[in-house]
Amino acid sequence: MKEAVIGIDIGGTNTDIALVDKKGLILSKTHLRTTDYPEFDSFANQVAQDVRSLTSSTGVNLKALGIGAPNGNYYSGMIEFAPNLAWKGKIDVAGELYSRLELPVFVTNDANAAAIGEMKFGVAGEMNDFVMITLGTGVGSGVVANGQLIYGHDGFAGEIGHMTSTPGGRLCGCGRKGCLETYASVTGLRKSVVFMHEEQKMAGKLENIPYENLTGKMIEIAALEGDVVAKEAFRLAGKELGKALANVAAVTSPSHIVLFGGMAAAGPLIFEPLKKYLEENLLTIYKNKIEILPSGLDGNNAAILGSAALAWNELEKLK
Amino acid sequence: MKEAVIGIDIGGTNTDIALVDKKGLILSKTHLRTTDYPEFDSFANQVAQDVRSLTSSTGVNLKALGIGAPNGNYYSGMIEFAPNLAWKGKIDVAGELYSRLELPVFVTNDANAAAIGEMKFGVAGEMNDFVMITLGTGVGSGVVANGQLIYGHDGFAGEIGHMTSTPGGRLCGCGRKGCLETYASVTGLRKSVVFMHEEQKMAGKLENIPYENLTGKMIEIAALEGDVVAKEAFRLAGKELGKALANVAAVTSPSHIVLFGGMAAAGPLIFEPLKKYLEENLLTIYKNKIEILPSGLDGNNAAILGSAALAWNELEKLK
Repeated sequence: MKEAVIGIDIGGTNTDIALVDKKGLILSKTHLRTTDYPEFDSFANQVAQDVRSLTSSTGVNLKALGIGAPNGNYYSGMIEFAPNLAWKGKIDVAGELYSRLELPVFVTNDANAAAIGEMKFGVAGEMNDFVMITLGTGVGSGVVANGQLIYGHDGFAGEIGHMTSTPGGRLCGCGRKGCLETYASVTGLRKSVVFMHEEQKMAGKLENIPYENLTGKMIEIAALEGDVVAKEAFRLAGKELGKALANVAAVTSPSHIVLFGGMAAAGPLIFEPLKKYLEENLLTIYKNKIEILPSGLDGNNAAILGSAALAWNELEKLK
Repeated sequence: MKEAVIGIDIGGTNTDIALVDKKGLILSKTHLRTTDYPEFDSFANQVAQDVRSLTSSTGVNLKALGIGAPNGNYYSGMIEFAPNLAWKGKIDVAGELYSRLELPVFVTNDANAAAIGEMKFGVAGEMNDFVMITLGTGVGSGVVANGQLIYGHDGFAGEIGHMTSTPGGRLCGCGRKGCLETYASVTGLRKSVVFMHEEQKMAGKLENIPYENLTGKMIEIAALEGDVVAKEAFRLAGKELGKALANVAAVTSPSHIVLFGGMAAAGPLIFEPLKKYLEENLLTIYKNKIEILPSGLDGNNAAILGSAALAWNELEKLK
């Protein structure tokens, strides 16, 4: 019988569930609205029911579940204090789903899952040392060294979005100042645009759009149309990302940086300044060695493929 | 017959060679002046001769050589472009010693060797995720994650001394500005003291000592005697180290930081500001989790024990 795993991507708004084979082929797929389940218990019931119906209709041998979730902890199998989810404190996702489905359940955060997805099904199959960066509302990261994802002693390694790229800089949601993600995320782009219009009194296509309504896509389109403010927002994002990743290079010396997420789809708008400022800030021994690549995963399914890859990876370790 | 390895520490001035057993006991030991050998070929001849005489007098079964050297590269077995050695370009240390002794030769840089030494014979035996920091003329580092030293794709990972801790700050020997080691090394302490005396016109015990004659020990003694300038130099060193290590934590989330080298022996003068500024700059999820420890290796023999530990470690991998 064909073997498969379930990949689950728990997001603040939606949760995607897919049945995935060893080659990364999606056999079947469903989703639910995370926000419809203020109690984790009823969410877990629904996920278990969906997993059963996805599997029964395809007649595969289901081996395990892999879950990517905000603040998902590999060691504890829990979601711990996720600011964007309704479930507060520590949620034992692995335990709750194991008790309902009696299958091994593996948990990590979404960016770590993306890094494993790139190794298994994307561009990082041959890479032993690389950094995965996900550019969305925030900046997520997964760091791979010696062919292994770095989880850290507590399961919380890889928070590059909260490296200080500009000491004393913009206030971050984490309470500290100058974190990379205050510049290099969609949130950062929006802050840059509003700052240039309102504080620096620069004129531009987006000047009448209030902060709440600005999207990354709007800023990307304006930049592609030549809007100076929008282009500058991308340049600043790439600059801060380049500075932070030059510091990461001094820790793990990666061969590649893989970019994923909506902003990565903006192509040269982000890749060009990133490349320029990364090289400018690197110690000589690292210069002209690091390749920057876009993700090799289908953007619509990348998160569930990453979660499925985690499950396959862990099953291999158990052999 | 008892098994042993040779640990070699190649420094800019001296080279130490020791025969070390599996428990880290030094069975015999010798040294030569690195600067007496402007040609690597004659250096290698002398080292080979010393290795033979150390071994023959003890009658052990010699299994391998481990070498810690500035810019020593684990993958290539070479010393590559070491600024403080007379031998220029790439020096095939492993190849040259293998051809003379016909034993496996393993090479890495001195800070990486120190990290492996701590795992094998020092305080890091039970640690899977820690950062080794060596505070000397410069700042060296070895980063361990998932129980393994991170070498990076090119063998040059772990240059934390060249992370930018203060953008636009002091000019570093590497040509860039604001590198951690311009503040947190003995060189950094000396720069801080001279800057406070000459630029800030502060008075202190060390004000009549020119930069060339200042030593780390003088600054330590002055600080212990209450000299404000010397104390401030240590505070600044600890502050910059704390800021940089808070960024490292966001990459690898270590459980421990292990400090080694002359400055680490200054105790609270460096540990207290380091602890304070590390905690101040950490992302919340990492706070109050990271323990800072002094090295568990005998300072006089730490480097050769590290090199010997590398050799034992690699021999185990070959099994």
